[in-house]
Amino acid sequence: MKESAIRGIWPAGLREAFDGYEAALAADDGDALADAFESGSDVIRADGSGILVGAEQIARFRSARGGIATRTISHVELRRLSDDTVLIVSESAFDGGGRGYQTQIWRYDDDRWRIAAAHVTPRPKALDTRVWRSVGDPLVRPTGEGPLAGLTVAVKDLFAVTGFPTGCGVPAVAAEAPAALTDAAAVETLRAAGASIVGIAATDEFAYSIAGTNPHYGTPPNTAAPGRLPGGSSSGPASAVGLGQADIGLATDTAGSIRVPASYQGLWGLRTTFGAVDRGGLVPLAPAFDVVGWITRTPQILRLVTAAYLPDPTARPLPRVVAVPDGLSRLLEPGTLIAFDALLESLRTDGLLDDVRTVEIPDPDLIRETFRVVQGGQAWERYGEWIAEHPGALGADVAERFAAAQDLSVAAIEVAGNDLDRLRPLLRDLAAGAPLVLPSCPGPAPRPADVGPQTRTSTLALTTIASVGGLPAISAPLLEVDGLPVGLGVIGAVDDDLTLIDLAASWAPTAAKAVTAPGAAHPQSDR
Amino acid sequence: MKESAIRGIWPAGLREAFDGYEAALAADDGDALADAFESGSDVIRADGSGILVGAEQIARFRSARGGIATRTISHVELRRLSDDTVLIVSESAFDGGGRGYQTQIWRYDDDRWRIAAAHVTPRPKALDTRVWRSVGDPLVRPTGEGPLAGLTVAVKDLFAVTGFPTGCGVPAVAAEAPAALTDAAAVETLRAAGASIVGIAATDEFAYSIAGTNPHYGTPPNTAAPGRLPGGSSSGPASAVGLGQADIGLATDTAGSIRVPASYQGLWGLRTTFGAVDRGGLVPLAPAFDVVGWITRTPQILRLVTAAYLPDPTARPLPRVVAVPDGLSRLLEPGTLIAFDALLESLRTDGLLDDVRTVEIPDPDLIRETFRVVQGGQAWERYGEWIAEHPGALGADVAERFAAAQDLSVAAIEVAGNDLDRLRPLLRDLAAGAPLVLPSCPGPAPRPADVGPQTRTSTLALTTIASVGGLPAISAPLLEVDGLPVGLGVIGAVDDDLTLIDLAASWAPTAAKAVTAPGAAHPQSDR
Repeated sequence: MKESAIRGIWPAGLREAFDGYEAALAADDGDALADAFESGSDVIRADGSGILVGAEQIARFRSARGGIATRTISHVELRRLSDDTVLIVSESAFDGGGRGYQTQIWRYDDDRWRIAAAHVTPRPKALDTRVWRSVGDPLVRPTGEGPLAGLTVAVKDLFAVTGFPTGCGVPAVAAEAPAALTDAAAVETLRAAGASIVGIAATDEFAYSIAGTNPHYGTPPNTAAPGRLPGGSSSGPASAVGLGQADIGLATDTAGSIRVPASYQGLWGLRTTFGAVDRGGLVPLAPAFDVVGWITRTPQILRLVTAAYLPDPTARPLPRVVAVPDGLSRLLEPGTLIAFDALLESLRTDGLLDDVRTVEIPDPDLIRETFRVVQGGQAWERYGEWIAEHPGALGADVAERFAAAQDLSVAAIEVAGNDLDRLRPLLRDLAAGAPLVLPSCPGPAPRPADVGPQTRTSTLALTTIASVGGLPAISAPLLEVDGLPVGLGVIGAVDDDLTLIDLAASWAPTAAKAVTAPGAAHPQSDR
Repeated sequence: MKESAIRGIWPAGLREAFDGYEAALAADDGDALADAFESGSDVIRADGSGILVGAEQIARFRSARGGIATRTISHVELRRLSDDTVLIVSESAFDGGGRGYQTQIWRYDDDRWRIAAAHVTPRPKALDTRVWRSVGDPLVRPTGEGPLAGLTVAVKDLFAVTGFPTGCGVPAVAAEAPAALTDAAAVETLRAAGASIVGIAATDEFAYSIAGTNPHYGTPPNTAAPGRLPGGSSSGPASAVGLGQADIGLATDTAGSIRVPASYQGLWGLRTTFGAVDRGGLVPLAPAFDVVGWITRTPQILRLVTAAYLPDPTARPLPRVVAVPDGLSRLLEPGTLIAFDALLESLRTDGLLDDVRTVEIPDPDLIRETFRVVQGGQAWERYGEWIAEHPGALGADVAERFAAAQDLSVAAIEVAGNDLDRLRPLLRDLAAGAPLVLPSCPGPAPRPADVGPQTRTSTLALTTIASVGGLPAISAPLLEVDGLPVGLGVIGAVDDDLTLIDLAASWAPTAAKAVTAPGAAHPQSDR
């Protein structure tokens, strides 16, 4: 560092501590880095992804990060804040171009200088590849004028967009796929209605996951709960909408791929009635269940975009009776059950519901297993050959899921097909009686470290009810557990799509009241 | 703000000061904002664009910013650093989605709390529209394997890229232009050599400026001198390369549009021999001068990319004699002249040059005026009709330049054409004797507020020598003035393009020594 680039006076020992920290960063020396920060629960590190508090959170972040690009400090501003406290604001120049900025509070204690707080701005990237494959201003223009004029769309990387390959969240696919010659039908509808495409957004590999992770491109951020899973497989459209970088996420839902990220990130998401929206130009996962849908920040925009695809029902009163599937409680985290019951109670108190019935539904485990086997059979039929030709192209989780799909017997797939044929009309009859309400997920978005096999199993038991029924289902951000969002799911009758939006939107004021009520059961967030 | 989202204790009066600052931000109340920060020259504000020091710099930034999006504070961490100093790290949730983070040092003095330092991370955007029109991972794949494999390109928004409109830095053009059906020749060469296109990058409107500003998309950052002009018209490719977001900027140079941003941002830039690189698929400005060229961070990559287009000369010794055009001094800022003379002296001392001659060249004012009139005639011929049909589509600076072009008489254009026919061979003869060396620009990148008509006039007097000569010219980041980069320009004979790169690269170690020498005439940076 040139001495002329330093403004201020180094107290004894601080220059050495500062340089030592830079050396530890360059070496990615976890112990030395931890040692350069104060220990205990008060130490802070902030960047654009969130505020980490306490040595433990910071250490966890560091071990996941795995080093930084080579940099040199190009400018330093030193300010003495007290006898034992110094502020350093510095600029770093990266060998590969670009500059970063870091503010540090150094404190002298126990005969040495350590960092009590840091705020870091890394050098900017051209795009966040966790969220996006391509973006533009816009990437693709509207083709018409209409109700979606001025709105921007993040398109899940499963839909054809003219001129771009469809990557399906798999780099080996993205590298080989030809540029699409026409838009997918669902993209065409949006552009014709005046929306512009801001970009093509991330998906879990072949959409065969509800976690929202991707081992190739990284995991998109959960915009409502930093550090937790974003939910998938429509992770990119959900994060893009949560980040305010798009108004509409154009997505798909097979087993909950719209409803899970909406629930995890406090967004509005609609899975449409099976067969209601044209799937032309969409890469399939399991055609028995795949549907098109959308993720938005507000019910107003969700309604606007849905109405661009589906006929608006003639005005009729909203349902005033809902049904809760029996036997949910074993699938839910305790806090979710409490929040769910409390919301239904408030809706009654506020006069929005006349009755909340309990209904028997077919065994959720049977529903989930029927779904799993039919999905597996169709997914392997579609991708088996490609996977055999591309060993190592998939991450462990999805590869394992395909391996299990490969192992399904023809007989088992046939049985499941028969079960599906039996269950679908049964569930449709149930939903025709009254909308089914249930949490979209067992609880808030988990931290990656806390995910077990049970996470997926319990979630699918909730989400596959609509999938197997071929029914429309909304996830509305109306529940809060430990300060984190959980979606309220409402499953409607066939073609009830727009009614579901209106119904859930009519409940939002009551939900908002419940969340902000003093004395509400919301212990301090553990974010 | 929910009380559960606050961790720590507010000292008396701080909560009110903190809330008052947020209210002032919401109202964009400049006086209240200035009053919330300490006055004087020690106060600091940092973000990803740089470190501002002193109340004056911060106030200037604020008045240029013009308010922020509506946000609410969603989380606060308070830490008492001393009796009168408190650290606040907070998270803000924006109404339109996304979160930002801010670290503030609040200090109690003179009966009130004020901010002594702040570090701000705004909510992330999908892309930096000052720099990019579109980006991808990659946006466009290579078509072949070759020496540029693994390198990424920022394409100036004047070249056809299959599937994208060519926007020319003008929104009204971008909105109407059809998607290109084939790549420009210069794009095709890069992709065939293995490079991938990371994005389409900004240009001044119709490339008719060397400032690097754009009133529609904003001014790209100067990556070497925060707060100063980036240089143009290849501003986007230059900033993208400076930011480390691309390895190669594919650009054009008519009056210095490669050399000026390279000079301002400490990058390597080559204007090629007139006619040497195919201009097919490139939107012209003034066909008598337009050439293709590149901007890079290193001479190695500049050489690689140039060699993908132009035949590599058989090995021959580098020139050991250079010529300095007479009468430069009145065009240069004093510090630039000192640095320039010092470098030539060091090159002699280091044995890299045997002789530095002075040569008479045609009057730079005549060269510049000849250039201006021929360029204006051709630019108006190309764009006059479009401009008449699109009133208000251009910003004031470029609109004024076109208006002046419109006013040129046929007779004046004819005279200038004759002068060009006379000057071009004359300058080619001169350059054939020995490479001409001169600073690329009169001085470092100016701050926007310091730009006057003289800035453009003096710069063009330097840059149009190569333009009028149709000669290759490099700008190499070998000079430093007040801690800021200035390019060393070397103008070669026809087809000397690769020799210029080798020559300037051979001088880099000497230049680096001069810059870091103790006692070198580099007063403290005023950045």
